[in-house]
Amino acid sequence: MRLGPPGKLRIAQVAPLSESVPPKLYGGTERVVAVLTDELVRQGHAVTLFASGDSRTTATLVPVCEKSQRLAGCVDPLSAHMLMIEQVAQRSKDFDIVHYHVAPVHFPLARRMDTAHLTTLHGRLDLPDLVPLYEEFCELPLVSISDAQRSPLPRQNWVGTVHHGFPERDFCFHPKPGAYLAFLGRISREKRVDRAIAIAKACGWPLKIAAKVDPTDVQYFKHEIAPLMDHPLIDYIGEITDAEKSAFLGNAHALLFPIDWPEPFGLVMIESLACGTPVVAYRGGSVAEVVEDGVTGFVVENMDQAIDAARRVHTLDRRACRDAFMRRFTASRMASAYVRLYRQLTSSAAGAGIVA
Amino acid sequence: MRLGPPGKLRIAQVAPLSESVPPKLYGGTERVVAVLTDELVRQGHAVTLFASGDSRTTATLVPVCEKSQRLAGCVDPLSAHMLMIEQVAQRSKDFDIVHYHVAPVHFPLARRMDTAHLTTLHGRLDLPDLVPLYEEFCELPLVSISDAQRSPLPRQNWVGTVHHGFPERDFCFHPKPGAYLAFLGRISREKRVDRAIAIAKACGWPLKIAAKVDPTDVQYFKHEIAPLMDHPLIDYIGEITDAEKSAFLGNAHALLFPIDWPEPFGLVMIESLACGTPVVAYRGGSVAEVVEDGVTGFVVENMDQAIDAARRVHTLDRRACRDAFMRRFTASRMASAYVRLYRQLTSSAAGAGIVA
Repeated sequence: MRLGPPGKLRIAQVAPLSESVPPKLYGGTERVVAVLTDELVRQGHAVTLFASGDSRTTATLVPVCEKSQRLAGCVDPLSAHMLMIEQVAQRSKDFDIVHYHVAPVHFPLARRMDTAHLTTLHGRLDLPDLVPLYEEFCELPLVSISDAQRSPLPRQNWVGTVHHGFPERDFCFHPKPGAYLAFLGRISREKRVDRAIAIAKACGWPLKIAAKVDPTDVQYFKHEIAPLMDHPLIDYIGEITDAEKSAFLGNAHALLFPIDWPEPFGLVMIESLACGTPVVAYRGGSVAEVVEDGVTGFVVENMDQAIDAARRVHTLDRRACRDAFMRRFTASRMASAYVRLYRQLTSSAAGAGIVA
Repeated sequence: MRLGPPGKLRIAQVAPLSESVPPKLYGGTERVVAVLTDELVRQGHAVTLFASGDSRTTATLVPVCEKSQRLAGCVDPLSAHMLMIEQVAQRSKDFDIVHYHVAPVHFPLARRMDTAHLTTLHGRLDLPDLVPLYEEFCELPLVSISDAQRSPLPRQNWVGTVHHGFPERDFCFHPKPGAYLAFLGRISREKRVDRAIAIAKACGWPLKIAAKVDPTDVQYFKHEIAPLMDHPLIDYIGEITDAEKSAFLGNAHALLFPIDWPEPFGLVMIESLACGTPVVAYRGGSVAEVVEDGVTGFVVENMDQAIDAARRVHTLDRRACRDAFMRRFTASRMASAYVRLYRQLTSSAAGAGIVA
């Protein structure tokens, strides 16, 4: 049944149900699953996507629930996820490999399945609650989205790091630097838009902030951030669509990414590079893996370094940023990296599951 | 291995981890699990309790996590629950029966286990999100805590209804009615304390309100309920401990339970009956199963009926309330009802699991 290396693989992609694939609005994991799924189809594989029914894909969609949970106002997200895990298990013999983008709902069942599987962990792993869980499920094949993401859980069965990727056509190269600094993402404590504002003010450069405010961050925004924005250099433009991102990032002089948490990946950094826009980022999590210090941006440790970096960032070659994206962060590179892992896992002992 | 009807059963109780067993504060499910577990031990069974490490039990405790999740400020409650499901599965051969008080985290694994099992559903079931999940898992043996609770999901494998129970020593019979009406529980929309206030005012009886306010209900309390409390008949005394309940309920003239939702059980009704205090309750969910209309209280449909009932409730025999509790709602009656189900499930085809 199983085909050799040049052959087509039968692949299940198991997505979170909180957003559609791709998401209508914000939703990093679902965006990546959408890109990966469509690219695997384009590369000739038979892909089945388990996702919410409002997803749009070139793969075969198994609609686990009618609508994505956040937009539907779902009050019990776990139910549909458990149902999905069951549906995957019942059809597991139809697949060479099952690729989970959720965790840990499938852990007990996955280790008892005969079908090869792997799980990409999309979130931060530095939570004490996770330690006993991952100690128990130490043999499950996991993929990290940056090497840094693994550090709190070094003893897992990590089968690879696969950086995220996007189709190159989604972002245009902008060879000419623009006249502003850019901040793109969420207004939340760990993203430190306050640092971005301080950097811009110190450099005397305009800063455009395109960012959503989650309900949990409304008080933080109102009381701590909004007052800082009342300045002629600072321009808050609210949330922007995916279609607007290319122009927003491409016309920027640099992206500021002054995070204060162990960023698992940081999609906006590769979006920026794809447009040719270098990144000034605080060290943390994946940052030093994504940004090549002195080539595609600067990795800094404090405000003095950040201000200095923002003043020098126009000296970097924008073409080098786009080249780095094309070499390291395209959808096809991501999909090929996963296919190598799929082949490795399907050729190693099938059915290494533990049965209680 | 398995012993016959008069023999001792090896029973696993699988509790939620959000509160300890018993809970330090509020936590209906964990209170019931505590009572059931200790009573099963008292009846001579070998009971293993999977629960948070700060639980206190006469059974053998398997501490899944160190502390109960709510008090520990756990940010990822699912992790420890998935770990617990795995621990139960690995030890399932040690038990004649596994009794789950969580759902649906164990559904996919439970249907593939050889050990007999059943699940008591402790919450409301009238949520649209639940329908596809329960359609898939239609064969799993379920227990309802009232007949009414089943109505949204009639086609499940319901093996019984077991009403909750408490040890009779936890509540003293108070033969003399007191001089106030009582409201006990949470201040939340579905509990309708506003109706209780209106009933008391209409009757001219004092109302004592012993209730907690959850963070999600603070605005509701402040803006809609607090203004109604500014009245000489209304006395808001905040949250009370389990130890204070017996006096609070026992000295009341009647308990008001004017709910506006499909109450799955309503523990406070049987606590009140245990003290000899009749209940004036709005019809809904379990109410008509717990309160014997005209004997242990009145089941009403609207405000006129409620006011009329509150005026007449002193005519009911308080001894009949305590007798109803002793006959229908003790811990030993609850445990015996479960043991009958355990024996029924262990003697019917063991290992009726479906394997994908």
